[in-house]
Amino acid sequence: MSDKKSPRPKAETPKGFRDYFGPEVTARKAMLDRIAAVYHRYGFDPLETSAVETVEALGKFLPDVDRPNEGVFAWQDEDKDWLALRYDLTAPLARVAAQYRNDLPSPYRRYAMGPVWRNEKPGPGRFRQFYQCDADTVGAASVAADAEICAMLADVFEELGLGGDYVVKINNRKVLNGVMEAAGVLDPSDPTKFEAERGIVLRAIDKLDRLGEDGVRALMGAGRKDESGDFTKGAGLSEAQAELIIQFLKAGQAHVAARQARAAIQNEQLANGVVSRATFAGPNPNFTVLATLRGLVGGSKVGQEGVDELQEMAELLFAQRYYSDRILIDPSVVRGLGYYTGPVFEAELTFQITDEKGRPRNFGSVAGGGRYDDLVKRFTGQSVPATGVSIGVDRLLAALNAKGRVQGDATGPVVVTVMDRERMAEYQRMVGELRRAGIRAEVYLGNPKNFGNQLKYADKRRSPVAVIQGSQEAERGVVILKDLILGAQIAQDATLEEWKGRPAQIEVPVADLVKEVEKIRLAQQVRDLLG
Amino acid sequence: MSDKKSPRPKAETPKGFRDYFGPEVTARKAMLDRIAAVYHRYGFDPLETSAVETVEALGKFLPDVDRPNEGVFAWQDEDKDWLALRYDLTAPLARVAAQYRNDLPSPYRRYAMGPVWRNEKPGPGRFRQFYQCDADTVGAASVAADAEICAMLADVFEELGLGGDYVVKINNRKVLNGVMEAAGVLDPSDPTKFEAERGIVLRAIDKLDRLGEDGVRALMGAGRKDESGDFTKGAGLSEAQAELIIQFLKAGQAHVAARQARAAIQNEQLANGVVSRATFAGPNPNFTVLATLRGLVGGSKVGQEGVDELQEMAELLFAQRYYSDRILIDPSVVRGLGYYTGPVFEAELTFQITDEKGRPRNFGSVAGGGRYDDLVKRFTGQSVPATGVSIGVDRLLAALNAKGRVQGDATGPVVVTVMDRERMAEYQRMVGELRRAGIRAEVYLGNPKNFGNQLKYADKRRSPVAVIQGSQEAERGVVILKDLILGAQIAQDATLEEWKGRPAQIEVPVADLVKEVEKIRLAQQVRDLLG
Repeated sequence: MSDKKSPRPKAETPKGFRDYFGPEVTARKAMLDRIAAVYHRYGFDPLETSAVETVEALGKFLPDVDRPNEGVFAWQDEDKDWLALRYDLTAPLARVAAQYRNDLPSPYRRYAMGPVWRNEKPGPGRFRQFYQCDADTVGAASVAADAEICAMLADVFEELGLGGDYVVKINNRKVLNGVMEAAGVLDPSDPTKFEAERGIVLRAIDKLDRLGEDGVRALMGAGRKDESGDFTKGAGLSEAQAELIIQFLKAGQAHVAARQARAAIQNEQLANGVVSRATFAGPNPNFTVLATLRGLVGGSKVGQEGVDELQEMAELLFAQRYYSDRILIDPSVVRGLGYYTGPVFEAELTFQITDEKGRPRNFGSVAGGGRYDDLVKRFTGQSVPATGVSIGVDRLLAALNAKGRVQGDATGPVVVTVMDRERMAEYQRMVGELRRAGIRAEVYLGNPKNFGNQLKYADKRRSPVAVIQGSQEAERGVVILKDLILGAQIAQDATLEEWKGRPAQIEVPVADLVKEVEKIRLAQQVRDLLG
Repeated sequence: MSDKKSPRPKAETPKGFRDYFGPEVTARKAMLDRIAAVYHRYGFDPLETSAVETVEALGKFLPDVDRPNEGVFAWQDEDKDWLALRYDLTAPLARVAAQYRNDLPSPYRRYAMGPVWRNEKPGPGRFRQFYQCDADTVGAASVAADAEICAMLADVFEELGLGGDYVVKINNRKVLNGVMEAAGVLDPSDPTKFEAERGIVLRAIDKLDRLGEDGVRALMGAGRKDESGDFTKGAGLSEAQAELIIQFLKAGQAHVAARQARAAIQNEQLANGVVSRATFAGPNPNFTVLATLRGLVGGSKVGQEGVDELQEMAELLFAQRYYSDRILIDPSVVRGLGYYTGPVFEAELTFQITDEKGRPRNFGSVAGGGRYDDLVKRFTGQSVPATGVSIGVDRLLAALNAKGRVQGDATGPVVVTVMDRERMAEYQRMVGELRRAGIRAEVYLGNPKNFGNQLKYADKRRSPVAVIQGSQEAERGVVILKDLILGAQIAQDATLEEWKGRPAQIEVPVADLVKEVEKIRLAQQVRDLLG
């Protein structure tokens, strides 16, 4: 731009941004529509805030620098106020809950779907604009609200055809604090004491998947040397202290391992009427792990409160038949702990995919959330209880793609070709007739001279049928219909016996255009279903 | 923010921005879904570009200032490149058409729906973020593409239930140029000559509605003094020159006046089979006005070209049964003339509303567009023909509201109240049963102590039915269902005889919960339909 001799601007998206074309847009929309239907059924109302907020309301302003920090896109308006693009959907909700607190129903259940922006270094698969899809309840102190969010999340996965392939893991920050207290690394009378130690323990827990039990144990003790020889200083806990926390983690681990086998038996028994829900309450893994946790937090008040909350959630979910095959207490879930004040949840997809190195691994996390009782307080000074979940739209869509569960019509239009430019009105009439019958259709509007280009165009559009009428056909009152999908299959595999007899091209009376196109479409759909 | 003592941020949307709640979001979404269905049927594919573009690609950079101009929200990224929020959906399309020119089908039909941002002074009803809904065809030089856009626009209005209440007006920039040439205020060999005069004439035409024929005539001649005594200098045309342009405008005016009467007769005749489309071609007003225009442009080459293009569009539209009651040639449409290179269109809603001063007036314009063959050229240096339309989403939604044609479910959820906190699991079970039957439902999750608050909450949520079960009802295996809509109507009009016999509250067995709620909902819908 500074080079004024450069005559032409570059036709490029800015770094870290991208465009979404045709089927990408419809697939995402179809998925979001289905999620919205579940949210709606649960009584949640949509909310669409503006993309732009004051930096003040977003709360990402660093007081020691002149500009908002690097995480957001921000600029100064003509009144010198800083504005910014929202970086998530929770901060705008907190602002709305404060701004309209006298008008909104309380509790306020809302969902929001839309893009958010992050001013971060773009990388492969990491974009600076992406979709989020959130549901939150503001103004409900009871963990019944948290349980509802978890149940709704499970229903979302069922609705998307992922039944059996997901688990919603729940934990409670207060339980972890209780275990820390029981282990002597949290002093309720002096919350800042042992803060550094607790930080190391937290980060160690977060690495359980990667380092295993021994690695975590080392980090909680003296420290750990990794493969490269680098030494990470540990939290300096005694063996007994570390053992308590390991037991806490293992309560979850054993539980996870037992989950699948347990769930299969339970479901079978329930289905056969061998057990009632009442007799069944005993062996449910969630209740087993709760008993373990209760032992681990010992006399810690906050710990007991956390276990009570988990117990209440587990009972509510159990009564609604969300068993531990779908919603699972897992103490190793420690996400965003600084931010959340009570229950936390994380949804994982459990089916296997192949990673970039060809190794199988679980698809992993696609949603997370929890209770955050202090966000609205920033504005009003009064604590407002709130809980919610955020779904990573792009990751969930990738999961649906991997499972072949994507919806959204990706079929191209029927293309009416132009053999004779003089008869454009007649081609338009045909296309109008097809559209009125609900068939996606268009006339070729490029230069009609080269007929081969028209068929190439139809191919690029993934057109199922081409309609052809030259002057000879017009005189005889017929059109030619070309089955482009069958044509492509025959071209691909010319030896396939069963297709040999079927012509990919037929001649029909003009009056039968709609009926005959519908017949071809139906045959295509049947062939598609039969593989 | 500079005041570090201020403990709390303000809970406010930035100036000129707003939030959209519940039914506002669903009504807009329902409208856009229906529009998208029409676009899809016409073979248009969705495109979603990012909200952020380089200022360079948007082309709104003023070379003589250090910052992009005031019309856009812009900021400098860490590499000192200027980024900006898109101000419409056409500029990003031009960028996409250039960037992906080797991969996109040609012609490329695309639609786009989404917010755009304008850094303008906000005012009443004027926001800095608003929705647009565009459809464009890139790469089709034929006016068959323009005719298709107009037909599709008409279909959109029919789809939205506005049949009979709209007209798509078409004109062609070349015809206006032809008339200017015939009047001697445009010299094809020196396009800059008489530029000032043509500017005055254009602005005068644009004021035809407000000033009437005499006012426009005065502005084309010596000038005009308005009511306040201010004098506007005229274009200095002779009476004969002005007369030609007035004739041009009146060709359209007479046409508009004759439209309704004509259309009624035509449709009747067509329906009765009194006339065939062939015999009917003669009296069609669009063809009458074309004959007039052909006379007015005289020997002007560009004028004849413009009339030929309008003629071709009119014939194509006529063959598809879009008569002049729906798509109308109107020479007084001069929108965005600097920008468009051929056909221009504007869609008006013709039903009357009452303006802020209590006077009836036509609802007016809700969409506009035309052919712009030079936008992609900015990037590639090669001219790429393009044509399209942009619908003003907020105005169209306001029109649907005015006509009572809004869709989208605004009914609140069935609210299961909490009489007894201990039995939350049972209330959750009920709500789960309702949801599985597809009924929108929720448990009251606020503090249940004050039962009146629960009913007030249900009211605020526009809940149709409240479910109540205290311990006595629980013992007897029943629930109370309260018809909140009937209850409100009875309260509002206690004398209404026909409702006296109907109880707004019934007791039913728990096992019949779903069935009985469905019965109440059905009765409500019937009462609603019968008014």
